[in-house]
Amino acid sequence: MTSTQSPSTESEAQRALFHQFGERLTADPPLELQAIREMFEEFHTLAAEPTQVCYEEVDAGGVPAMWCLPVGAAQDRVMLFAHGGGFVTNGMCSHRKMAGHLAKAAGVRGLVIEYRRAPEHPYPAQLEDGITAYRWLLGQGIEAGHIFTAGDSAGGNLATTLPLKARAEGLPLPAAIVALSPWYDMEAKGETLVSNAATDALVRPGLAEGMTAMFLGETGSMSDPLANPLYADMAGMPPIFLTAGSWEALQDNADRMAAIARSAGVDTTLEIVPGMQHVFTFQAGRSPEADQTIATIGRWVRPKLGLG
Amino acid sequence: MTSTQSPSTESEAQRALFHQFGERLTADPPLELQAIREMFEEFHTLAAEPTQVCYEEVDAGGVPAMWCLPVGAAQDRVMLFAHGGGFVTNGMCSHRKMAGHLAKAAGVRGLVIEYRRAPEHPYPAQLEDGITAYRWLLGQGIEAGHIFTAGDSAGGNLATTLPLKARAEGLPLPAAIVALSPWYDMEAKGETLVSNAATDALVRPGLAEGMTAMFLGETGSMSDPLANPLYADMAGMPPIFLTAGSWEALQDNADRMAAIARSAGVDTTLEIVPGMQHVFTFQAGRSPEADQTIATIGRWVRPKLGLG
Repeated sequence: MTSTQSPSTESEAQRALFHQFGERLTADPPLELQAIREMFEEFHTLAAEPTQVCYEEVDAGGVPAMWCLPVGAAQDRVMLFAHGGGFVTNGMCSHRKMAGHLAKAAGVRGLVIEYRRAPEHPYPAQLEDGITAYRWLLGQGIEAGHIFTAGDSAGGNLATTLPLKARAEGLPLPAAIVALSPWYDMEAKGETLVSNAATDALVRPGLAEGMTAMFLGETGSMSDPLANPLYADMAGMPPIFLTAGSWEALQDNADRMAAIARSAGVDTTLEIVPGMQHVFTFQAGRSPEADQTIATIGRWVRPKLGLG
Repeated sequence: MTSTQSPSTESEAQRALFHQFGERLTADPPLELQAIREMFEEFHTLAAEPTQVCYEEVDAGGVPAMWCLPVGAAQDRVMLFAHGGGFVTNGMCSHRKMAGHLAKAAGVRGLVIEYRRAPEHPYPAQLEDGITAYRWLLGQGIEAGHIFTAGDSAGGNLATTLPLKARAEGLPLPAAIVALSPWYDMEAKGETLVSNAATDALVRPGLAEGMTAMFLGETGSMSDPLANPLYADMAGMPPIFLTAGSWEALQDNADRMAAIARSAGVDTTLEIVPGMQHVFTFQAGRSPEADQTIATIGRWVRPKLGLG
């Protein structure tokens, strides 16, 4: 796709929903956290039900999780999926359909983890839960090289920091990382926060900062590489696929990580899709951009897992 | 179960969620309709994902719908499921899991219809959409005698009025009706509205009345038998299975329909489960009461569809 290509008609539904959410997030009086959580649960309405996928709730070593089980998927290959929502909202139900589409495209089972959320459980609870689920997968006999991490927004952060933390703990690394519209920049330094402020319907000034405060709590640091991997040493990390929309306020999170990973010698793929909003893959099964990116990720990741 | 049996520990989760919803519904200032709709979407969190069920969105003759496709289900037998929510809230997504459990227990494909909602579309839009989906199923080659209607609350009303309307239009009747905590009583005359007011955590005074006003709009009648089948001639209707919780404000909707149907010679089964809330089958896969009732319904309906 070229940068002059117009966004699809179908993608207008996401812009409209995000605009409505963005308006409500900036209303006075401000929404209660519970109301924001309920609102963001509606993200799932953007996706179509993936066909030929079954589900099964599971206790992943103490972390609630959901298997997305595409018919015919390789049983010994797994996508470990972390949902987005600023580490504060959403869960395995709101992201089940998007994860189901991704698992199906990759030809693997998908494990969507429901990590503890901030502010009740600030950093590093989320990363701890991610590592617990990863250890649980290894304990189930799944080889690290047959696992890839994936996630959107805050989940894209977790999909990236999980291998960093695994390395720190002496665990074998997964085969690949997929970060969809990742949110890394805890300092809110990104240029696209300003340059794309007019085109991002959802991520308005203050939203990320508010979530950062809840995520990091009283003790977390904005430059901790396991909370903000723009500060991480990515050398030796597995191949990474980054995607974002060109209309996103958080677009340059993906850009900057791509530059950092490439500099560190990581096999890096960056795809910026014109005119797309934050986590445009929410429209899995509904917009051509979402479907094309998901298909691309499937083709990219399968050989890394030893799948044809 | 006897009336002295205590509700399960697991069922406390539904009472707690309903109590929270009930409090918010009666707060001052009152919630906007949009907020009520978002809140009620959370009903689905009460149910576990049914295993071995896939999904597929479908256009059922113009009515958006979702197939729940249990692995190994009879392909030529169908549950036509209408969701609850006072004809005003909810949709195929909030009821997908409960419908999936029911379809699996019955050994059939489930079609969850997303009928138009009030107040944007008052009565009879919901019934029209139900009939459209029913005609569509017949047009797909599914025999009427291989279909049963099912629904909870307002959807239990629709599951009951659909065969009445089908008869009025000269269509063949489905094999059975399953009404889960049905809401029929548009006049709010039920004794349990008072006698169970202290035990029903969700359905508080005024809630049903408010939904009735939206459902019937300016022209509907509270005693129209196709809106309030407590006024219907049930003679000749298919076997009906009614269930409700003994702590429900709407309990006697099921009681009264059972009496009406029996008087009319209809094969009628009524199951009142002690200590249960409105639509306790929302807890499918999570509470023993929900699972037992769903299993009972499966055993009840299969022979009526010619299944072993």
